[in-house]
Amino acid sequence: MNALDELAESFSRLPGIGKKSALRIASHVLKADDEFIKRFASQLVSLKERIHPCNICGAWTENQPCPICSDPTRDSSIICVVEQPQDVTTINNSHEYNGLFHVLGGVISPLEGIGPAQLRLGELTERVKANGVKEVIIATNPTVEGDTTALYIQRLLQPLEITVTRLASGLPVGGDLEYADRLTLARSFRGRSAF
Amino acid sequence: MNALDELAESFSRLPGIGKKSALRIASHVLKADDEFIKRFASQLVSLKERIHPCNICGAWTENQPCPICSDPTRDSSIICVVEQPQDVTTINNSHEYNGLFHVLGGVISPLEGIGPAQLRLGELTERVKANGVKEVIIATNPTVEGDTTALYIQRLLQPLEITVTRLASGLPVGGDLEYADRLTLARSFRGRSAF
Repeated sequence: MNALDELAESFSRLPGIGKKSALRIASHVLKADDEFIKRFASQLVSLKERIHPCNICGAWTENQPCPICSDPTRDSSIICVVEQPQDVTTINNSHEYNGLFHVLGGVISPLEGIGPAQLRLGELTERVKANGVKEVIIATNPTVEGDTTALYIQRLLQPLEITVTRLASGLPVGGDLEYADRLTLARSFRGRSAF
Repeated sequence: MNALDELAESFSRLPGIGKKSALRIASHVLKADDEFIKRFASQLVSLKERIHPCNICGAWTENQPCPICSDPTRDSSIICVVEQPQDVTTINNSHEYNGLFHVLGGVISPLEGIGPAQLRLGELTERVKANGVKEVIIATNPTVEGDTTALYIQRLLQPLEITVTRLASGLPVGGDLEYADRLTLARSFRGRSAF
């Protein structure tokens, strides 16, 4: 195995990159400019030193607390609960939401041995109690585990007398009804709204 | 832009990786083990120092000449002509071919200003003349440029009185050799035809 195959092998260990793509990418690196390669390599090595979970919301950040938690223009009376740190980026980039976030760090999954104790639920309750939060939006994925977790959080927060909502689930915009699966269709019927 | 976004930006500059995939991969790096990351980074940086074109065939190699050119068990009376160095790996991995290779380094493309002079054609003629080559198999991509280049080479080698063949069009027209599957490649080797 030569240096090119070795690099390709490393690329193929990353998510979504197959063997052929990995070789193609490694070949591309051979032709890339040196400055880019050096910067890329140092970004790889320094990533874990520079990025840590925010002490408050759990999103990845270079500073404590993260830019979102420390932004005074954001609505601190709403917390959006997500599974993973990258979900914060996804939602934030949509510019549809201006409140705060809370990363669970996973979902309840008995099969994988993940129970409520492994998630950042205690921290969530603390934040809701301490800071005059009025609404918690649960944005876990619309999967069996995500739904179970959402239901668990809803019950957990019930005694605190705040509004707990769940992101709407239904047909994706721009999608085709023909290709919608049965469960998605069922949900879009249940969640239908008047004009 | 934090360290995570910076790394994602670098990943998104690689072929076939979009913005969302890049962020997903960067997030994966955050969770990857340190040993893998260090090895990956050093592979990136050392690639260009370790890998060079073979003096004879032009394929990428760590040693001169490359393992294929220096393998005495390979049939040195056949040369397979390809566009790019990665095509050598693709064909070699199919185990359908046991001759030598010759990398052109591109195809004749007037639009991109690439003429015969920019390709390793002189080296090809030299090799054919010097080493008792009986057959040249042209394995340029089945595209307009690839076909044009194939025809050009066929005419170039005509005076040397050797057999010049072209890979059969079992390859999907308009496709890319790099992404051909093994069976398709095998068929195109078996079904190769004289001009």
